[in-house]
Amino acid sequence: MNLIVILNYLGNIMRIEGAAMLPGLLISLFKHEYHTAYAFFLTIIFLAAFGSLFASFRTKQKEISHREGFFIVGVSWILLSIFGAAPLFLSGEKQLASFLDCFFEIVSGFTTTGASILTEIEALPMGLLYWRSFTHWLGGMGILVFMLAIMPSSGTGGSIKILRAESPGPLVGKLVPKMRNTAKILYMMYIALTVLEVIFLLCGGMPLFDSLLHTFGTAGTGGFSIKNDSIAAYDSAYIDGVIGVFMLLFGVNFNVYYLLLTRNFAAAISNSEILTYFGIVGASVGAITLNTLKLFGGVGKAFRYSFFQVASIITTTGFATGDFDKWPEFSRCLLVMLMIIGACAGSTGGGIKVARLIILYKSMRNSVQKMLHPKSVKVIKMDGAVVENRVVAEINAFMLLYVVIFLLSCLVVSLDNFNYDTTVTSVIACLNNIGPGLGLVGPTGNYSMLSDLSKLVLSADMLLGRLEIFPLIMMFTPMMWKRSR
Amino acid sequence: MNLIVILNYLGNIMRIEGAAMLPGLLISLFKHEYHTAYAFFLTIIFLAAFGSLFASFRTKQKEISHREGFFIVGVSWILLSIFGAAPLFLSGEKQLASFLDCFFEIVSGFTTTGASILTEIEALPMGLLYWRSFTHWLGGMGILVFMLAIMPSSGTGGSIKILRAESPGPLVGKLVPKMRNTAKILYMMYIALTVLEVIFLLCGGMPLFDSLLHTFGTAGTGGFSIKNDSIAAYDSAYIDGVIGVFMLLFGVNFNVYYLLLTRNFAAAISNSEILTYFGIVGASVGAITLNTLKLFGGVGKAFRYSFFQVASIITTTGFATGDFDKWPEFSRCLLVMLMIIGACAGSTGGGIKVARLIILYKSMRNSVQKMLHPKSVKVIKMDGAVVENRVVAEINAFMLLYVVIFLLSCLVVSLDNFNYDTTVTSVIACLNNIGPGLGLVGPTGNYSMLSDLSKLVLSADMLLGRLEIFPLIMMFTPMMWKRSR
Repeated sequence: MNLIVILNYLGNIMRIEGAAMLPGLLISLFKHEYHTAYAFFLTIIFLAAFGSLFASFRTKQKEISHREGFFIVGVSWILLSIFGAAPLFLSGEKQLASFLDCFFEIVSGFTTTGASILTEIEALPMGLLYWRSFTHWLGGMGILVFMLAIMPSSGTGGSIKILRAESPGPLVGKLVPKMRNTAKILYMMYIALTVLEVIFLLCGGMPLFDSLLHTFGTAGTGGFSIKNDSIAAYDSAYIDGVIGVFMLLFGVNFNVYYLLLTRNFAAAISNSEILTYFGIVGASVGAITLNTLKLFGGVGKAFRYSFFQVASIITTTGFATGDFDKWPEFSRCLLVMLMIIGACAGSTGGGIKVARLIILYKSMRNSVQKMLHPKSVKVIKMDGAVVENRVVAEINAFMLLYVVIFLLSCLVVSLDNFNYDTTVTSVIACLNNIGPGLGLVGPTGNYSMLSDLSKLVLSADMLLGRLEIFPLIMMFTPMMWKRSR
Repeated sequence: MNLIVILNYLGNIMRIEGAAMLPGLLISLFKHEYHTAYAFFLTIIFLAAFGSLFASFRTKQKEISHREGFFIVGVSWILLSIFGAAPLFLSGEKQLASFLDCFFEIVSGFTTTGASILTEIEALPMGLLYWRSFTHWLGGMGILVFMLAIMPSSGTGGSIKILRAESPGPLVGKLVPKMRNTAKILYMMYIALTVLEVIFLLCGGMPLFDSLLHTFGTAGTGGFSIKNDSIAAYDSAYIDGVIGVFMLLFGVNFNVYYLLLTRNFAAAISNSEILTYFGIVGASVGAITLNTLKLFGGVGKAFRYSFFQVASIITTTGFATGDFDKWPEFSRCLLVMLMIIGACAGSTGGGIKVARLIILYKSMRNSVQKMLHPKSVKVIKMDGAVVENRVVAEINAFMLLYVVIFLLSCLVVSLDNFNYDTTVTSVIACLNNIGPGLGLVGPTGNYSMLSDLSKLVLSADMLLGRLEIFPLIMMFTPMMWKRSR
C-alpha cells in the first residue's frame, strides 16, 4: 500500500472535519459557552494543522488499489470518531468526563446510530448539541463521498473504490460516468431533501435550531434528538407525520431519486427494492396498529404511533414518540425484526438492507430448484440486470460475519449481567445503527450504565454496521498486510 | 412423482412404527395399565393393517427422483408424528386430553427435541414413558435409514436420496458402496454405543427401566427424562459424568466411528469438524465454569454442572442437572449460542452443525480474499476434499431459510405475549431440537402454557430443524408439483 496516498486522503478528511466544527465554535461563542468554544477551537486548530500537513503529501499514483480503498475508509472513520470526540471531552461537561463515553457518543453520531450515553441531553451546551447532530448528517451520506464531491479528483480509478467501501448496499455503482459528478449529484439531492424537511418543520412551529438539528438526525437516519423525550416532546401529529415521512424518504435508495430527476419514472416506480421496502412498511404499520389498538384506545392514535415507530425503526433512525418497550410482545418482536432488515441500499439507513435480502431470497430459490432438478442452470436478476456470483458470495460472507459479530458482541455485553432483552437488543441496535433497543436501552433509557468494555465493543459494532463490516474487518486480516506482488 | 413408490415406502414406515410400539403394549399389559394397552393395541392394529396394504403396492421403478426422495421423507415424518401421537391421545390421560398436545410431544420425541407439554411427567403410565423416549432413539439415527437397513432394497439409486434427505449435515455420503450396508453399519454402531451406555448407567445404580429410557434420550440427543427434575433427580456425579460423555459421543459424526472401526485412526483424529467441536466444548466448559464459580462456590461443582450442561446443549439433547436459566447472563447467552451451533453433521444431534459453520467460514474467507485481490481463484476444501459450489450454495440457502423461519416463528409465538427470552428461546430450542430454553420454557418449565397456534408452529419448527428444512419446505413450492418432463 502507498502511505503517501493514504496520508493525503486522511489529511483532507481531517480538514473537512475541522471545517464542519466551525458552526459549533460560532454557536458556542454566540451563546457565551466559552468552555465549549475553547474545546472546539483547540480541536479545529489541531485538525487544520495536521490535516494540511498530511494533505500536502502528494504522489503521481493515479489509481488506488482495492486494499488501499478499504484501508482509507476504515482508518478515516476511526480517526474521525476520535477527533470528533475531542470537543465533547475538552468541553469539561460533567456527563462527558470519560473519553470513552465521548467516543461512543460521536461514533454513534457518525455511524447514524443515535445511541447515547447522555442521561440529561437538554443540559448540554448548544454548540455540542449542534456537533452531535451534525455528525449524523455527515455520516449519513458519507464524509469520504463528500470529499470526492468537493476535491479536485487526483485520479479516476480510486474514487469508485472509496464510494463502494463507504456506501451501504451490495451493488454500489456510479450515477454518471464521472465519479466526482456522481458524488456531487448525491450530495445535491441530499441537501435538497434536507432543506425541504427544515421548511416543513418550521411550518409546524418547531424553532429553527430544533428544526435544523432534528433534520440532521432524520437525514442521516441517525436519531439523536435535543430533547430527553425525543420527538414526543413536541406532541404534535403534524411534526410526527413530517418526520415520519422524511425518515422513510431518506431510507430510499438515492439512485431512485436520480431516476426521478432524469424523468425515468417507469424504472423508479418498478424498482423491486423500493416496492419491497414500502410493502414491509405498510404491512408492519398495519400489524402494529392492530396489535396496539387496545393500548392506544383508537385506530387514529394507534396508527399515528405505529407509523412513526415503524418508519423510525426500519430506516434505523431511532427517534421515538412513545415507549415501544412497553408495547405488546408482538409489536416489540416485529420492531426488532425491522431493526435487522433495515432500509434500502444506497440510502442513509443501516441494517442488512432490503436489496441484500432480495438477492439472498433469489439465490435461495435457485438452490432449492437445483436440489430438485440438479441440471437446471439459472442466473439471478435484479431489476433486469444479472447479479454476478461474486456479489452473491460477498453477501453471504457479509451475513456470516454479521451473525458472528452479533453473537460475540452479545457474549461480551452479557458479562454486564443485565437481562436478556437489554443484552441482545443493545447489540442489535448498535450493529444496525438504530439507537434505542428494548429493556434498559429502550427509548426511555440510554447506554450510560454499560461497562467500558461493552461500550467499546458496541462502538466497534456501530462502525462495523455503518461500513458494512469489510473495511474494518480487513484491517485485521493477514491478507491485507501481505506484500503485494 | 410415482404414487405407487411413495405408498410403498409409507406402508413400510407404518409397519415399522407399529412394531416399535409393541414393547409399549407389553409394558402396559405387564404393569396393568389397561387403558394405555388398549390405546397401543388400537394404533398397532391400524398401522399394521394400512401399512401392509400400502406396502403391497409394488412397481418396477428402480430409481426414485430427487423430488420423490424429499417428498417421501417429508410426508413420512409428518405421518409418523400423527400416528405416534395416537397412543398418547387414546390413553385417556388427563395431561394428554388435547390431540395437539400429544402431537407436539411426539414430534418433540421423533425430532429428538425433548420439549414437553407435560407438567407432571412421573404420573404417566410406564408404557407411554417408554414410547415417548423410544421415539428419540428412532428419530435420532432416522427411521427411514432404519428401513433402508432392514428391508431388501428395491433399488440402489433411491436409497442414497432418502439418506441425504433424512440425515443431518451438508455432506452426506455412503460409508461403503452398497447403500443398504451403509445403513446397517450406521445402526450397528448406534446400537453398540446404546448398549454401552445402558451398562454404564446400570453400574451407577440406575434402575434398568430408567437406564434404558435415559439412554434412548441420550442416543437420539433428545432429552426426554422420566423424572420431573430430569437428570438432577439422581444427584450423582457418576451418572452426570456418564450421560455427559455419552451425549458428546452421540454428537460426533458417525463417519468418524467408522474410520476408527476400519483402523483409519489418522483420518479420524485429524477430522476438522471433530477438532472444532471438541474445541468449542472445551472453551465453553472453561468459560461457564469460571462464570459460575461464585454460584457453585467451588471449581469442582462448577465444572461438573458446566460440563454436563455444555454437553447437553451443544449436542442439542436438553437434559438438565441444574436450572441454567438462573445462571449469570454470560452463561445463559453462551448456552443459547451453543444451541444454535449444534453438534456435528452425521450425528444424531441438531442445530446448524459444526461442519456447516466451517464451510461457511472458509467460503467467507475466500470472498474477502477476492475483494482484496479480485483475480484470485480458490476452491474450498474440507479434510482434503473439494467442497463443490453447489454445496456452499445449499448451505447459504439453508442459513437464509433458517433465519426467516426463526424470525417468523418468533412473531407468531410473541402473540402469546410472554417475555422476550421465553419467546425467542422457545423458538431456538425447538428449531434446533434442544428442548429447554430460557424463561418460562427453561429447564424447570415446560411448553404447556403456550397457545395452540404457538404449539403448532413450534411443532413445525421441530420438524424443520430435524429434517434440515428442505424436505418440508419443498412440499410447499410450486417446483415440487410441476409435471416433470
